[in-house]
Amino acid sequence: MSRDETPVSFDEIRALLRELPGPDLEAAQLAEERQAQLTKPAGSLGRLEEIATWLAAWQARARPQLERPRVAVFAGNHGIAAKGVSAYPSEVTAQMVQNFISGGAAVNQLSGLAEADLRVYEMALDRPTADISEGPAMEEEACARAMAYGMMAVESGFDVMALGEMGIANTTSGAALCLALFGGAAEDWVGRGTGLDDARMATKASLVARAVEVNKAALDDPLQVLRCLGGQEIAAIAGAIIAARLARTPVLLDGFVCTAAAAVVQALDPKAIDHCLVAHRSAEQAHARLCEKIGKPPLLDLGMRLGEASGAALAILLAKAAVACHNGMASFSDAGVSGPAGD
Amino acid sequence: MSRDETPVSFDEIRALLRELPGPDLEAAQLAEERQAQLTKPAGSLGRLEEIATWLAAWQARARPQLERPRVAVFAGNHGIAAKGVSAYPSEVTAQMVQNFISGGAAVNQLSGLAEADLRVYEMALDRPTADISEGPAMEEEACARAMAYGMMAVESGFDVMALGEMGIANTTSGAALCLALFGGAAEDWVGRGTGLDDARMATKASLVARAVEVNKAALDDPLQVLRCLGGQEIAAIAGAIIAARLARTPVLLDGFVCTAAAAVVQALDPKAIDHCLVAHRSAEQAHARLCEKIGKPPLLDLGMRLGEASGAALAILLAKAAVACHNGMASFSDAGVSGPAGD
Repeated sequence: MSRDETPVSFDEIRALLRELPGPDLEAAQLAEERQAQLTKPAGSLGRLEEIATWLAAWQARARPQLERPRVAVFAGNHGIAAKGVSAYPSEVTAQMVQNFISGGAAVNQLSGLAEADLRVYEMALDRPTADISEGPAMEEEACARAMAYGMMAVESGFDVMALGEMGIANTTSGAALCLALFGGAAEDWVGRGTGLDDARMATKASLVARAVEVNKAALDDPLQVLRCLGGQEIAAIAGAIIAARLARTPVLLDGFVCTAAAAVVQALDPKAIDHCLVAHRSAEQAHARLCEKIGKPPLLDLGMRLGEASGAALAILLAKAAVACHNGMASFSDAGVSGPAGD
Repeated sequence: MSRDETPVSFDEIRALLRELPGPDLEAAQLAEERQAQLTKPAGSLGRLEEIATWLAAWQARARPQLERPRVAVFAGNHGIAAKGVSAYPSEVTAQMVQNFISGGAAVNQLSGLAEADLRVYEMALDRPTADISEGPAMEEEACARAMAYGMMAVESGFDVMALGEMGIANTTSGAALCLALFGGAAEDWVGRGTGLDDARMATKASLVARAVEVNKAALDDPLQVLRCLGGQEIAAIAGAIIAARLARTPVLLDGFVCTAAAAVVQALDPKAIDHCLVAHRSAEQAHARLCEKIGKPPLLDLGMRLGEASGAALAILLAKAAVACHNGMASFSDAGVSGPAGD
């Protein structure tokens, strides 16, 4: 997508959503047939087989590849941080962006190990979104521009996109998005973020409930939910998910906030995140519930809760393992290995 | 350990068990102190932090390394295969060994991705152990020799050993070991292996119960349990675990059969497998219960059930990720990132 075509209104984004391509079912079928011939009992590689078929379907190749992964981290600031919903001050967002640029963060090490192209997208950190507990986070144009910015992270030639975020107070925004999209109680959707105590957890929950209450009149549509309760980095991730789908690039979603952005896209069209897998189950307590709501069981469960695409970058290694087995293993007939005795 | 020192009796193995070194607590402490300074909320890398500290403790280095991993696969045949406890015929063990040598198996691809040295140890495949449902699998000398053979897989200079096995019918042997060590019902410990139907599962369970019954008089000691109910590849894994401990080399255990071998070693000395982590939760249904019994929650849970060290090889990638973050990340002070607001 060139800059000229970049959408700057929700109508333009809705138009893109009507054009989403589906998976290549023939490539997926050929991949499954190959899996059945490889020297292993049927299904014995578990989710590595699922990953290989998923990559085949979206890359439109019976033998998928994972030579060129990209890790994209979007950073944004949130007005509600001033209400003390995070253990860390807002300036940490910009400091961590500098750390990404200097190569000192976890995602740098994990991207390096996965031989992934790491890009960091800084979203006007000196202009945080408005406090969602007092009104909408953004105007429509700002939200659409943030989505368009995220779309530009999806360039051609990447085998998978691993998406993640950095933004002090953004689990509060993620919780508000989930409460608006899925209902329940605010307490169901809040977690300790970077490390809140019980008292500040209670404050966070009441602010999440208030954010949904004060914005209620506008929450009749998922894009309005995103505009009112999201953040710039969350809108960018939603945009990147849509652009990846248009490019048929498979996506690995990081933790709670990133998955909340995907839930907005799924609410717009139930099939719109079929090209996405959730990389890991975050220790942020609402993430497991959110993964159930969107029907995507996470690949990894390592008690991580860092964000910054760290879990998604780690899952690239699983995708590489899946591709290595899928493409490199011998078949029963090639290797002269007998099949099951009863066959 | 040179060949001259290789034990060939249980007494010699018991003598080795009295000399097991503990972890380097100072290196572990320094590693934990470093983790607390890295640019992330405390504990937010979850089990990657646990892996880094574990490697530090056993490698006796505050900054562990994972440049030289070895994957060791032990292959053996089992007399009880003749009773139809596997979906595959016994000749598949030797055929799969050829596949390992040719580079066509899953473990070849996964070892390649992890840049691990893969070794396959073939254990007299033309001379299976005796049928455990009719009497002891082995004489003491054969069992001790198999353990000694496994010990020789542990050479100096490896940063981690990933252990696994190949052996048609060996989940039957693993189930019998578990029943003898932990009690319960035979049904608690049997699974579908490479793909049994319900009728053959019931046969397998009754043979496991019978194996423990007919060998009952000899099962007063874990090494006797291993001799009567184990197999050559299982004894070799037990030996490799002990030798790795003597060399202070950390160990990643593969699935059900490999973990059953570790359970024998733990039964000999409750601390003797402190240098081991379970790499993944096998889909073989008894594995989760076995991991609970030995107190080692698996790192991965991907529905894999292939054996051949495939899950352990995959977990090497997690260990590499842990080391990359531990050694490569900046500290809060290096990166100029603020700590929690309340601190």
